[in-house]
Amino acid sequence: MLPLSLEQLIQELSKLPSIGRKTAKRLAFSILEKPDSEAHHLAEAIIQAKQNISSCNICYGLSEETICSICANQKRNQDIICIVEEPKNIYTIEKGGFYFGVYHVLHGAISPIHGVSPDHLKIRELESRIQNTAPKEIIIATNPTIEGEATAHYLTDLLRDRVNIISRIARGIPSGSDMEFADSVTLTRAFEGRTDYFRSQ
Amino acid sequence: MLPLSLEQLIQELSKLPSIGRKTAKRLAFSILEKPDSEAHHLAEAIIQAKQNISSCNICYGLSEETICSICANQKRNQDIICIVEEPKNIYTIEKGGFYFGVYHVLHGAISPIHGVSPDHLKIRELESRIQNTAPKEIIIATNPTIEGEATAHYLTDLLRDRVNIISRIARGIPSGSDMEFADSVTLTRAFEGRTDYFRSQ
Repeated sequence: MLPLSLEQLIQELSKLPSIGRKTAKRLAFSILEKPDSEAHHLAEAIIQAKQNISSCNICYGLSEETICSICANQKRNQDIICIVEEPKNIYTIEKGGFYFGVYHVLHGAISPIHGVSPDHLKIRELESRIQNTAPKEIIIATNPTIEGEATAHYLTDLLRDRVNIISRIARGIPSGSDMEFADSVTLTRAFEGRTDYFRSQ
Repeated sequence: MLPLSLEQLIQELSKLPSIGRKTAKRLAFSILEKPDSEAHHLAEAIIQAKQNISSCNICYGLSEETICSICANQKRNQDIICIVEEPKNIYTIEKGGFYFGVYHVLHGAISPIHGVSPDHLKIRELESRIQNTAPKEIIIATNPTIEGEATAHYLTDLLRDRVNIISRIARGIPSGSDMEFADSVTLTRAFEGRTDYFRSQ
């Protein structure tokens, strides 16, 4: 019923995450209503982004150069490496503006169910990076999921003799949220990770 | 902070309707994670859709040919023309599967505030179409907004001497919804548009 090219555009848009057919349709119609130049800018931006962006040779985050702007920044503390699952996690942490070390992107997490073993991740690259640069601390910021926790434990076992400090980001009640909304696993983690406000000697 | 090409892709995606920066970011990262071929399919689909789809010469709906598949379909009742604001409205009505007439797309609605006068719409084209084909009924299916209602009244005044039946789709409480959620304008329309279940003679 819909013109073929429109149907095809809707199908391609539907492949994007959390874009259902209804949203894809709305987007496709809005693209058709745009001036030709704007639609071409969008198509061009997709092609350019795929063409120009690759992995940083040090941290495996996104970069248009061989070394990304964070790894190349001499003001960043190269002695602390924060380990994340995906490139996008870097930007989430950077947005906070509180972290001044560098990163290492695993490109996934260990998941036997999905056939992801340590060999599929940038773990060997992490090992040789640690051997070459001897960082003081590794902060493991993988997700607080089963896979993320398994990866954190694996990395801790693997690296415990090679780095002085291996830390894991705290898991607990999100700031600004309500206790009522926390599930029991989150609550358990929050109790386990409690910090002293006062302790008599 | 983000690689330039990624930032540009996010900005282009943000121009789409109801795509905020956060969603655009998520879409952009997912496009980067796709295989090259898939990202190219998306870009290509955008370009092809813009290139191949234009207006039907009769109804001004979307079409890859000079005449769209609905206008070209001899099984459709050419004596009834349903008037809609936008091409996408056709597909919403077609989805219902209850309408077997043809369409006419105005490409907007009269809106003095936004500088849209009857001359900006496909109204002259509608007049000559009516003169040439002498349809029996015009169903006005513009939106139940101030602009849509104004357009409906304008068309009724304009065409009352040239068509036997001019009708307006009913406005009322949506089926399956709750009275509580209806605003007062909708309720007013629902009362005005009430139909008799029984009336003693």
